[in-house]
Amino acid sequence: MKEKIKLGYIGIGRRGRSMLDNCYSKMDDVDIVAICDIRPERMESTREIFEERQKPMPKMTTDYMDIINDPEIDAIALMMPWEGRVDIAIEAMHANKQVAIEVGCAQSVDECYRLLEAYKETGIHVMMLENCCYDQRELAIFNMVKQGLFGEIVHCDGAYRHFLNGGLLGEIIEGKELTHFRLKHYIEQNCENYPTHALGPICKVLDINRGNRLVSLSSFASKARGIKQFAADQLGEDSEWAKIDYKQGDIVTTIITCADGATISLTLDTTLPRGHYSRGYSIRGTKGCSIQDSRSIYLKEMGEKVRDNEEEMIKKYEHPLWKNFNENISATHGNMDWFIGRAFVESVKNGVKPPIDIYDTLTWLVIGPLSAMSIAKGGTPVEVPDFTEGAWQNREPIVKGKYCLEEVCDEK
Amino acid sequence: MKEKIKLGYIGIGRRGRSMLDNCYSKMDDVDIVAICDIRPERMESTREIFEERQKPMPKMTTDYMDIINDPEIDAIALMMPWEGRVDIAIEAMHANKQVAIEVGCAQSVDECYRLLEAYKETGIHVMMLENCCYDQRELAIFNMVKQGLFGEIVHCDGAYRHFLNGGLLGEIIEGKELTHFRLKHYIEQNCENYPTHALGPICKVLDINRGNRLVSLSSFASKARGIKQFAADQLGEDSEWAKIDYKQGDIVTTIITCADGATISLTLDTTLPRGHYSRGYSIRGTKGCSIQDSRSIYLKEMGEKVRDNEEEMIKKYEHPLWKNFNENISATHGNMDWFIGRAFVESVKNGVKPPIDIYDTLTWLVIGPLSAMSIAKGGTPVEVPDFTEGAWQNREPIVKGKYCLEEVCDEK
Repeated sequence: MKEKIKLGYIGIGRRGRSMLDNCYSKMDDVDIVAICDIRPERMESTREIFEERQKPMPKMTTDYMDIINDPEIDAIALMMPWEGRVDIAIEAMHANKQVAIEVGCAQSVDECYRLLEAYKETGIHVMMLENCCYDQRELAIFNMVKQGLFGEIVHCDGAYRHFLNGGLLGEIIEGKELTHFRLKHYIEQNCENYPTHALGPICKVLDINRGNRLVSLSSFASKARGIKQFAADQLGEDSEWAKIDYKQGDIVTTIITCADGATISLTLDTTLPRGHYSRGYSIRGTKGCSIQDSRSIYLKEMGEKVRDNEEEMIKKYEHPLWKNFNENISATHGNMDWFIGRAFVESVKNGVKPPIDIYDTLTWLVIGPLSAMSIAKGGTPVEVPDFTEGAWQNREPIVKGKYCLEEVCDEK
Repeated sequence: MKEKIKLGYIGIGRRGRSMLDNCYSKMDDVDIVAICDIRPERMESTREIFEERQKPMPKMTTDYMDIINDPEIDAIALMMPWEGRVDIAIEAMHANKQVAIEVGCAQSVDECYRLLEAYKETGIHVMMLENCCYDQRELAIFNMVKQGLFGEIVHCDGAYRHFLNGGLLGEIIEGKELTHFRLKHYIEQNCENYPTHALGPICKVLDINRGNRLVSLSSFASKARGIKQFAADQLGEDSEWAKIDYKQGDIVTTIITCADGATISLTLDTTLPRGHYSRGYSIRGTKGCSIQDSRSIYLKEMGEKVRDNEEEMIKKYEHPLWKNFNENISATHGNMDWFIGRAFVESVKNGVKPPIDIYDTLTWLVIGPLSAMSIAKGGTPVEVPDFTEGAWQNREPIVKGKYCLEEVCDEK
């Protein structure tokens, strides 16, 4: 058990900076000792954050190996784009650093197997920082599931319904240099590129890799029209961005079948105009359900015509983490960024497996490339690898600690 | 053009009686001349309806051939269960009767081809009475689609989210004889057994069989737990109904890909408790969308965070049929039963093709058996037959008349 952890930071783009500003720099038990980015001006611009927090400015480097080889560093927050990050994570694991990565997808199935190999060699769990696992709604529903209130869970829905065109093309519209790394994926790939905001909490509900597992996946992409139309509207039909045939279908639907017979439906919905963000989170059991889009959490004894009661139910069944939450802290994304950051930091401090472990991370990372394969084959089902090599059936399930995502913990 | 039509009625169960009571018996231009059911007491019990309407009691028979061979009859409403109805429809077509069937699914793909053959031999279109095509919401959205307000349509969702266990097992719970024909399907089949409430309106939005077509379908079923749990709760765990291993998965998700690259997602959701009915109707275009579950109809110029505006938008873009609707008429299912009944009656009166024609009916009927095939093969995509034999590319699209479902008609 460490009093403090020493954190190295690789990648200080928009997400990296936000987590630095809202979470790690506010934590008394975290020293950020070094940061790395290929753009020095981005690192330099974090100076104001450290000054505000009255903390020393970390060492700066453009070479990530400086972070990996720094003997002072306990853990690395890998806040860079998707390409190449797995290889950097592997180098960090071999240097005996704990590693956190951001959400998103692997670039190939092979990448996932290489990460698994590194885990077997080093024993280091890479934790995906899937903040939605700690959202107030998702945790209250998790709490209800673990209390058996919904009965046996039969089906779950989740989505990433977030109109991104303004963000993806924003720099171009403003005449700036394009740095938004996700646009490239929309041009070159056709897959479920952002499954984990929904899949993360669903896997925790369904005990995936701990008695259950994802067995088979099929993905289907609609035609791709949204970005092209948006570019034509914003930049004119003659703009080069309006002439690209984007590969990424506007709506991607993915159906996953689990070993226990439950099904999961995931939707990627990021390039067509819609009036509001939603994770379309829905958990269906034999005794009740939660349905985000109709703001309802329903138990069968409630009778008929229940909707719009989500808020009161979330309060009623609030997870201990939220119930005991210090309201003076106000972090981004409705505070879930704070929880996910703490979950990582505490696992490093306590020297225990993180609540999102290597098998969770691998299972969530692999959805992207598998969905690309299925779409390319017209929706043909593809097998989901069992990274646990059979151990999922009897894996020791409980990650102890207040941030655990396997049972409802009330540790203070 | 006839002044009045003479209608024969086959099947007078719950749905048949409801349509008789709420629609046909109230129409001045419809004479119901004969009814048929295998249960004489059901026919006899309709006497009160005819007395209330001051109309003559129709002839009664338990032999449907009496209806088919009755030279007086112009058209037959086939209101019987799913098994065997296609063969009766074929006999009626060969007797030169116009035929309407209720919603639901075919029992085999072969049945659909036999119906197609009968159409080719007789020229008679069998109209599926898919009432949801005329719902106020669906028609307002159809109106908006045809005005181009949503831009190019890229993806549609629909569902039948209706907790049926109380109905399916109701007679058993009350100690009565079981007559609910759908329970048998839940015991013996595993498929998308009720696709048309969603698919009907979606096909009209996407111009299916008129410039576009359904190409490929994949279906996925969750485990089946809902009815068994409900039976155990209501009848005890020792009840024979709690011991059945129902074949029908609780949640069935079906993804259909269209010739123009649009995708359709359908969900069957009838056996797990949920707080409210929904058709989960959602139409996604490049310029806007409708999303039933968040009660929103959104156009891109509206900016952000739009939801709960559906009611005002439906009023604003109300379809002419609803705008001109006589409010003194009040029929079941929010009046859509009235519209679908009128659509059939007027097509017979005017001697024109019904707005839901043989190709619509076949396309909608075939989803059930195709989904069963896909589920049995682990979600492998199956081809959707092209019943038009290539004619879908240039079929003369417009069915004229105020009930048409191909353009927005304002005929009084």
